[in-house]
Amino acid sequence: MAYSFSHMVHSMHAKDVKLLMKQSSGKDMISFAGGMPNNDLFPLKEIEDIFHALPPDLKKLCFQYGPTAGYPPLIKALKSYLEKKSLPVEENKILITTGSLQAISIITQEFVNKGDIILTEKPCFVGALTVFETYGAKIIGIPVDENGIVIDELKAVLKKLPKKPKFLYVTPNFHNPAGIIYSLERKNELLETLAGKGILLLEDDAYSDLYFEQGDKHFKLPMKALNKSDVDVIYTGSFSKILGPGFRLGYMLASPDIFDKAETIKQALDACTSNFCQILAQQFLAQGALENYLVFLRKEYRMRKDLMIQSLEKHMPEGVDWHEPKGGFYIWVKLPAGIRSKNVFRESVKKGVVFVTGRTFDPKGKGDRFLRLSFANVPKNEIDKGIGILAEALKKTMTKRDKFNTIS
Amino acid sequence: MAYSFSHMVHSMHAKDVKLLMKQSSGKDMISFAGGMPNNDLFPLKEIEDIFHALPPDLKKLCFQYGPTAGYPPLIKALKSYLEKKSLPVEENKILITTGSLQAISIITQEFVNKGDIILTEKPCFVGALTVFETYGAKIIGIPVDENGIVIDELKAVLKKLPKKPKFLYVTPNFHNPAGIIYSLERKNELLETLAGKGILLLEDDAYSDLYFEQGDKHFKLPMKALNKSDVDVIYTGSFSKILGPGFRLGYMLASPDIFDKAETIKQALDACTSNFCQILAQQFLAQGALENYLVFLRKEYRMRKDLMIQSLEKHMPEGVDWHEPKGGFYIWVKLPAGIRSKNVFRESVKKGVVFVTGRTFDPKGKGDRFLRLSFANVPKNEIDKGIGILAEALKKTMTKRDKFNTIS
Repeated sequence: MAYSFSHMVHSMHAKDVKLLMKQSSGKDMISFAGGMPNNDLFPLKEIEDIFHALPPDLKKLCFQYGPTAGYPPLIKALKSYLEKKSLPVEENKILITTGSLQAISIITQEFVNKGDIILTEKPCFVGALTVFETYGAKIIGIPVDENGIVIDELKAVLKKLPKKPKFLYVTPNFHNPAGIIYSLERKNELLETLAGKGILLLEDDAYSDLYFEQGDKHFKLPMKALNKSDVDVIYTGSFSKILGPGFRLGYMLASPDIFDKAETIKQALDACTSNFCQILAQQFLAQGALENYLVFLRKEYRMRKDLMIQSLEKHMPEGVDWHEPKGGFYIWVKLPAGIRSKNVFRESVKKGVVFVTGRTFDPKGKGDRFLRLSFANVPKNEIDKGIGILAEALKKTMTKRDKFNTIS
Repeated sequence: MAYSFSHMVHSMHAKDVKLLMKQSSGKDMISFAGGMPNNDLFPLKEIEDIFHALPPDLKKLCFQYGPTAGYPPLIKALKSYLEKKSLPVEENKILITTGSLQAISIITQEFVNKGDIILTEKPCFVGALTVFETYGAKIIGIPVDENGIVIDELKAVLKKLPKKPKFLYVTPNFHNPAGIIYSLERKNELLETLAGKGILLLEDDAYSDLYFEQGDKHFKLPMKALNKSDVDVIYTGSFSKILGPGFRLGYMLASPDIFDKAETIKQALDACTSNFCQILAQQFLAQGALENYLVFLRKEYRMRKDLMIQSLEKHMPEGVDWHEPKGGFYIWVKLPAGIRSKNVFRESVKKGVVFVTGRTFDPKGKGDRFLRLSFANVPKNEIDKGIGILAEALKKTMTKRDKFNTIS
């Protein structure tokens, strides 16, 4: 089926998609690939009830143009939602965007000219890499460890750069693909490192509501909330993981100066974001339905994460490593030395399992000792079977390499 | 009310908005300003019924990501819709965009670098002007008469240009703001003039379904359908006027080469257009609901147009001129020599009527002998009262000018 196939390949490396197409039509595959929410968990009834209950004037407004900055009641509802995350909403302004990718795109258009430098994490969300490449930026990736971006590596890069980078793009909470959350200490270190340097921090926070444990509240605090220095932090968020990507609803929280230019750019991109989607999301937020839905989602995704961790422990050979995520959608698996993710992919696809290879998330197309497994959009009863198949594919790849090493 | 105010000022000149804000909060004004459909005419029940009747799998898909090019069944439905307009859908590809303004924005990003020349009509749709300015284009406007762009003026400009323009942007069917439709002859002349010159034609066709008379079918044919020469025509269309701008749904029909780059740019703008909106629109199209709705819309807008023409004839002083539109939303009113639209605006706002001044649609901010009246989004029973007030404001402006002339 062409359509479900296009879903599976969402965020996959172009070369891997080619291989997948050669091997199969995507039918009956177990997919750990797509970075999207689970189709079976969307709040269908809640949204249908919300639309049905709208007063006629609001229904009409769903069909009409809205202001470029966003539907004012949604901005208001977002303000109190973001205030609960300790974000400084009063000194900043909110721009509603057509998905948070549009926010990243707008900021890139606002600050970056061809040849300008953008710093990212390595690995990095592939959608952001696509945006930065499209606008001709030179991308430099800074490694990430289990507590966040590696500060010494960042400092070393900053020293060597021929010119000041336009911004550093980070996803501190439940990283895509690395699955980690920055420690509070690392967040503060990063802010200190950037202080006084005039380098913007672009903080992408698409996943922070999807934690598995209540835990330490400060752990999940956005960097824009922690920031006490002079660093200009632009914060972006999304409804894609807490309502549905089909609404194409995101937002940015930025200082009034940055907001003003961003609003002008948005006007030239699509005039305004869908009122239809904005009004439904506003009601979902303002009526308190989001909170109940999040409780449900956290439980569901946690169950899938637990199943996948158990299966990894059961099936994976020695030398394979992973970090158990505290939230989000992903497990970032480190392969034994000398094993390349794309070779595992080749074996795995033959046997009916797909994932995303590590190189996909590297601006230079390297970093292929990793693979990203998404536990979000896969039926629970397929997880163990799929990880079993993946482990077999990995073992076969390891055997081949051993043979090759013996021969050569 | 801040929100209805923001609706009223949609597409108004910034200076006029300032004046309006000084004079009033926008409350109880009669607005001939907004270029949007009428809130009371949207197909609320049809869309609610469509969503309610969707099978569960399609409802889930509404919430999910879709392919960058668009929801495949919507592309299929659009193909047969565009085939009925004699458009060459087989040799071209369709890209679904977040409103047709996004299509214009993508084409501008694809072809235009800072300082490049874009040709437009004069007057020109203000949204397109905003896009072209944002990307740093040099805009040159070619006058329009009641049959379309003036070919001799176009030829004269082409001769004088220091470098080849990247494209010519036109809205041949029910022009915004001029209210005209290109004659078949003029369309063919324009294609002949561009033949062999390597200048793209960007054809914006947001209004062609909103005709008032069945008339000559060829009259409404898109230029992309008429084109037999080597001119590369990019055709854009929109659901904003035939379903609702709140869906932010548009599309482009372009050659495969242009499509490929456009798809890459779209991926970096918002990844994909809302599946929620696309699936509702696809059902609206595929179930045949659009055709019935258009019959209703044409009748309703025609009634408003007739009322406004009658009122203009009744109230306007001598020396005021207009062209009766055959479709669309607008009447473009020419003021007596020496009278400036912004001065009439000043008087008119004081008395409670707003419209859009002519300079708004001129890349150079001139062309102020005209004003645009929209009959689309105003209650029928306010039209005569509003035109009466406007006529009084105009007469007062004329008297002032006469006094001034006498004194000086």
